[in-house]
Parts: sequence; C-alpha cells; structure tokens
Amino acid sequence: MNDQTVLSPTSRTTIRRLPELAHRDRAMLYRIVDDAYVCHIAFNAGEDTHCIPTAHWRRGDDLYIHGSNGSRMIKALSAGAQASVAITLLDGLVLAKSAFSHSMNYRSAVIYGQFEVVEGSAEKLAALDALMDKIAAGRRHEARPGNAKEINATSVLRISLAEAAVKVSDSMPSDKDEDLALAVWAGILPLKTTRGTPVHADANVPVPDYVRNWAD
Amino acid sequence: MNDQTVLSPTSRTTIRRLPELAHRDRAMLYRIVDDAYVCHIAFNAGEDTHCIPTAHWRRGDDLYIHGSNGSRMIKALSAGAQASVAITLLDGLVLAKSAFSHSMNYRSAVIYGQFEVVEGSAEKLAALDALMDKIAAGRRHEARPGNAKEINATSVLRISLAEAAVKVSDSMPSDKDEDLALAVWAGILPLKTTRGTPVHADANVPVPDYVRNWAD
Repeated sequence: MNDQTVLSPTSRTTIRRLPELAHRDRAMLYRIVDDAYVCHIAFNAGEDTHCIPTAHWRRGDDLYIHGSNGSRMIKALSAGAQASVAITLLDGLVLAKSAFSHSMNYRSAVIYGQFEVVEGSAEKLAALDALMDKIAAGRRHEARPGNAKEINATSVLRISLAEAAVKVSDSMPSDKDEDLALAVWAGILPLKTTRGTPVHADANVPVPDYVRNWAD
Repeated sequence: MNDQTVLSPTSRTTIRRLPELAHRDRAMLYRIVDDAYVCHIAFNAGEDTHCIPTAHWRRGDDLYIHGSNGSRMIKALSAGAQASVAITLLDGLVLAKSAFSHSMNYRSAVIYGQFEVVEGSAEKLAALDALMDKIAAGRRHEARPGNAKEINATSVLRISLAEAAVKVSDSMPSDKDEDLALAVWAGILPLKTTRGTPVHADANVPVPDYVRNWAD
C-alpha cells in the first residue's frame, strides 16, 4: 500500500482496545462510510456534549453532512467545534462458551477533526448531487432540483477523513482453552441491513429501475 | 399517560428541528433502546471529544454499558464525564418529488447525563445477566459464568434514561403542493435489520432453540 491508501494513526486514532482489530486500509474506511446512511456526531455546544445522528455521504476523502442553517449542530460545527464522527455497521452477535467471551462482529470508523462549511451555491449543489447519487444513481436528473431559497436555507459541511480509526471484527468466538470442551453452543448470530419492498406514494408515475430492483 | 410514562423535555432534550416528530412516550424510548444492540456515546477526555460505539442494554429506567477497566471511555465516564448517548434505528429512505424534500424514516433516542459505576460483584453480575438475557433468554444458564478475575477486570456503568429526546419519523414523502403533479417517483425505500443463518463454531453441542429460530 502507498501512503494514500494507509491510515496514519494519531494519538486520538491509535486503537488501544483490541489493537489487533485495527484496520489501516483506506479502502475499508471508504467502504464503511459508503455502506452506512447515518453517522453519529459528537460535539460540544455551550456546556453540553451532544451525540446526534445525521445522514452522511462521501466525496473523495471528505465526509459530508447537511442540515438547516438554524440547527444547533450545524451552528456549532460551522463555528469550528471539535467533532468526532462515528459510523458503525453491526454484522452479528458472537456467542462464546463463557459469558465474558461474548462479543460482536462489526465494522466501525471514528473520524476526528473540524467541519468546514461548503460555500457557494454551485459547490453546495454539486455536493448535494452526490448525496442524491448515493440514494440512487440517476435520481438527481429526475427530482425537481433545489431552488435558490432552498439552497440558501441549507448548510452543507464537510470533514476530512484524514484522521480516522477503523476497527473491524469479523471472527468466530474466541474461548479460552479450558472452556472449549464445554457443551455450550458457540458461534455467530448474523445481523444485516436488508431492503424491503418499496412503498409507492404516487401510482401514476413510472417506476424507475432503482426502485424496482431495491428489495433484496 | 401518567408522569411515569411521559418524557419531560429539558433545555437539552427539547426538539427544535421538526418538533412534530418529537415523541413523548417512555414506552417508545424503551423500545428503541431494546431494539438496538449498539449505541454511540459522546464524551470529552482531555482536549478531545469522542464518539464511540458500544453494546448497551436496559434494566428498568437505566441504560447499561460495560468494558475493560482500562478503556479510555470507561475511565472518562467512570470519572463523571458529561455524556450523550444516541441510539438510531434507520427504517427507510424517503424519496420525494423535489430534491430538498428527500428524508429518512427512523427512530432515535438521545440521552443526556452522567454514568455511574455499578459497584459490587453481585450487582455487576446481575447487570451482566441482563445483557445475556437480551442476547438470548436462557443463555445465562448455559454459558460458563464469569469468574472473579473476569468480573474484576470489567466495569459496568449505567445512565438514567430520565433525560432523553425521542424522535420518530414514519411517514410518506411530504412535497410542496406545486411539486405534487411532477412525474417523479416518490415513496419509501425501506431498510431493516434482519437476522441471518447462524454459523456454528462447534458441531458437537446441542443447538438451542434461540439459535434454531434466530434467522428471519
């Protein structure tokens, strides 16, 4: 791997607990960011520490969010609050023969830094087009585009993915040798996100392929 | 609803964005906490703000977490750091006829407060039994119980669910009147967490019903 594809740990992103699960591949970071629709953002506003879920998307090495100009989170992050963004995909429960060896399989990314405000209508629209592309390729050419009023009322923010900790657990239960002979079921109970049958709001319009092919 | 079942908003949990989505029913809060296996916790440690995913469970009106005594998060939260705990269940993408009216259906809870350390081996074990019950009823009578060394190395923390903001979005797209006639597909693309076929680590032990019946 060259420098571009490797995550270089800082004091905040060095994985201390179970360091063997640290993943230093930037492609894995991108996959986690792209596979999830929602991230959680930690930030301080006044006296309070907040953890707020929001939709996110990625362009290159930046993670994007958007929101109403007036929202508490958008105001704090636009003002340069230190932020931590976490994305977690849970893949299963890992049941071991001993109670304390139970664990989970997951892929997670925790990003540190400050958001910057995306300025200019054209740049904001380009960023928001990428969100539409994440929902469904082609959809941005179908939906009615944002007008000046809508664009002005919305803030688009981005944070670099440069400082990120990626952790992947994808394994069978790990019991101590002395527990292996116990007659206790051990294994993985998988969990996954699946797509359900689309619900149509308007029966009088053509159904695009990305809707027809949505459900698993 | 009596006082016990109603969430009383504080300055931190008053829902400012889309207040019509605020949900003041404590039963809904409990359902969100119980339906999710992983929460995200925001807290400060030194100069840094962190957002860290971890497993959680509920007993009564408290949310519980556990972890190694040495973990940065456990140390900060045990020392009384202000915390915000977010749990989000994503139910679907909501596609509207206009780009800016796209949204998501979700159920989310954001809890504020400070964690307290659960003291005493018996009380810790009782709390951890409840985690095992969440994974599978009956499992705590099968797995090898924790021994003194394991229990001593693990911290169990709880935070009251008293100060919580619950937000539920469960609706069809909401377009402006002037957009409703557009020939653009609108509706819901559902997402859900489903259970996959269990993976057995040991073929020589009986398969419990909660494993046999796990997959959807």
